[in-house]
Amino acid sequence: MVKRTSLEAADCPIARSLDAIGDWWSLLIIRDAFLGLSRFGEFQRSLGLARNILAARLRTLVARDILRLAPASDGSAYQEYVLTPKGRGLFTVLVALRQWGTDSFFAPGECGNELVDREHGEPVRRLEVRAADGRLLRQGDTVLQRRTPRQAAARRRA
Amino acid sequence: MVKRTSLEAADCPIARSLDAIGDWWSLLIIRDAFLGLSRFGEFQRSLGLARNILAARLRTLVARDILRLAPASDGSAYQEYVLTPKGRGLFTVLVALRQWGTDSFFAPGECGNELVDREHGEPVRRLEVRAADGRLLRQGDTVLQRRTPRQAAARRRA
Repeated sequence: MVKRTSLEAADCPIARSLDAIGDWWSLLIIRDAFLGLSRFGEFQRSLGLARNILAARLRTLVARDILRLAPASDGSAYQEYVLTPKGRGLFTVLVALRQWGTDSFFAPGECGNELVDREHGEPVRRLEVRAADGRLLRQGDTVLQRRTPRQAAARRRA
Repeated sequence: MVKRTSLEAADCPIARSLDAIGDWWSLLIIRDAFLGLSRFGEFQRSLGLARNILAARLRTLVARDILRLAPASDGSAYQEYVLTPKGRGLFTVLVALRQWGTDSFFAPGECGNELVDREHGEPVRRLEVRAADGRLLRQGDTVLQRRTPRQAAARRRA
């Protein structure tokens, strides 16, 4: 588990992200929400997680504005968990984890599921880190820089 | 924590990735390794983690072929932890988390650190999910598909 106090105010956006998501289970809940699951029982069946643990994770995700509660779409008394805009922003993170997992942990010829373009049924492209001018960047081509207040303000306006 | 038995053999590459990385601390260790940290004491100072916890995380990352042990680059008796090719593959995951964290958890004008192109000092582009033909895809434009054995084999050959 992540130490709350140290990471929430960390300078590093990665640390703040990890702090907000909470733990791996939470990221699998978010994955399932992207796949259209929305009810407590659906998440439970998908993840095989104890009710109390699942309830705690869902509460945290709502508190952090990653999921929100909504009335059931079929008019029943159930409540549904729906991704907020902030939660939908995790799509790229999940695609990155998916591509790394496919590269690293699937044996040759092993079947897994794959993310395809709905229109043509073709696998999506690999994510690529690129410079402002479009050059493909590897990690060694990048460097961390501390934003000055002026740059931070300009970036927010953009 | 992630339940080992259920996720290691999961069909979902995201679940296998999360299972391999282990927990958030491990991902922060990997982040630090990308920043050039390599010794036990360096990771400990950076993360403020108890020695036994850090040692266990490093052992797991080595066992999963994400880090490897190497003799110290300065010829001293220390050992260094170095990213393997599989570990370096996590660069995109960290960039995705960084961009989401910057969007979601930094107040307007707040300074944080930022990943820039070493050559021109400009921030790297946002990661984008694109179709094979280059169209920008949102999550709703994609769908999960189970790979057939034939597709899986073709993909490995590619």
